[in-house]
Amino acid sequence: MSRRLGMFNNVSLDGYFTDAEGDMSFAKPQGHDEEHLEFIRQNARGGSVLVFGRVTYEMMASFWPTDMAKQMMPEVAKTMNESPKIVFSRTLKTADWAGTTLLSGDPATEIARLKKEDGPDMTVLGSGRIAAQLAQAGLFDEIGLMVIPVVLGQGRTLFEGVTGRPRLKLKEARPFRSGNVYLTYQ
Amino acid sequence: MSRRLGMFNNVSLDGYFTDAEGDMSFAKPQGHDEEHLEFIRQNARGGSVLVFGRVTYEMMASFWPTDMAKQMMPEVAKTMNESPKIVFSRTLKTADWAGTTLLSGDPATEIARLKKEDGPDMTVLGSGRIAAQLAQAGLFDEIGLMVIPVVLGQGRTLFEGVTGRPRLKLKEARPFRSGNVYLTYQ
Repeated sequence: MSRRLGMFNNVSLDGYFTDAEGDMSFAKPQGHDEEHLEFIRQNARGGSVLVFGRVTYEMMASFWPTDMAKQMMPEVAKTMNESPKIVFSRTLKTADWAGTTLLSGDPATEIARLKKEDGPDMTVLGSGRIAAQLAQAGLFDEIGLMVIPVVLGQGRTLFEGVTGRPRLKLKEARPFRSGNVYLTYQ
Repeated sequence: MSRRLGMFNNVSLDGYFTDAEGDMSFAKPQGHDEEHLEFIRQNARGGSVLVFGRVTYEMMASFWPTDMAKQMMPEVAKTMNESPKIVFSRTLKTADWAGTTLLSGDPATEIARLKKEDGPDMTVLGSGRIAAQLAQAGLFDEIGLMVIPVVLGQGRTLFEGVTGRPRLKLKEARPFRSGNVYLTYQ
């Protein structure tokens, strides 16, 4: 397989990647955090195809193209808006965010097919249901979790319903001054 | 306050401290792991009062006093069996595991009272509901989570129902050769 599939998610200390309302803003840095910004810049340097489920896609598509997003986080907004994207949905008829390919097939089948083709690496952001399906199919080459030191109390967990208890290989545990810890697994 | 309250839990990569059946064996080391054993020995050196909810208490009380537990993990079994213990329950009439005090009052009220008295530190093991109540009341001085690189897919999350999004202070992120990462927060 020539293309790698990765995942990046922020997770709360109690394991949620969104709160009960689907909101991911718990992960926002507290105040100015140059170390975090530099990490995001590196992470968002582009070159990857971003992969979404419908829910995460619609949330991000309604945010990143706005002037506010461009002003608040110009570099990340540029990467998000200019990167090629894939959204998996059986209900969407169109997907208007620039550079989006809408796929309605089975995510694991489609991604397995794409991994065999030439092309840039792919990165899943958010998208818990898609992430669980791709994890279940063993398609991830790397998983990155930024553990935010916040307790949400409820929310959506990653990998919901995955069976077989897959065991991952730790690559790195990187603590940030903010108290975030970035865990990467292979 | 003169006594400190801590927590120790193993959690899966997707944030569960037990699987859907209440089983914690996902956290068992794979094969012989001297580094992990040494950590557990240090951790279990005793001196702390162990604090439980009924469910975790009954599970542990049925395991640690057995000959099998004493043979498999002699040092930990000794500490677990000899440490003073508190179990919170409104339904238990007796608690027979050596050294157990049975308390039926509100856990946060009782622990707040105990923290003001002289005595050894206290450590919550497992006991998700109790942990959530004590976290909600802001009673923890230190929280230790051993992140096991296994995806459970479902289970019980820590801190369930905690509100107000408490933010913790990272103390240390310690990776183990096994792929476990021990995160401690204050």
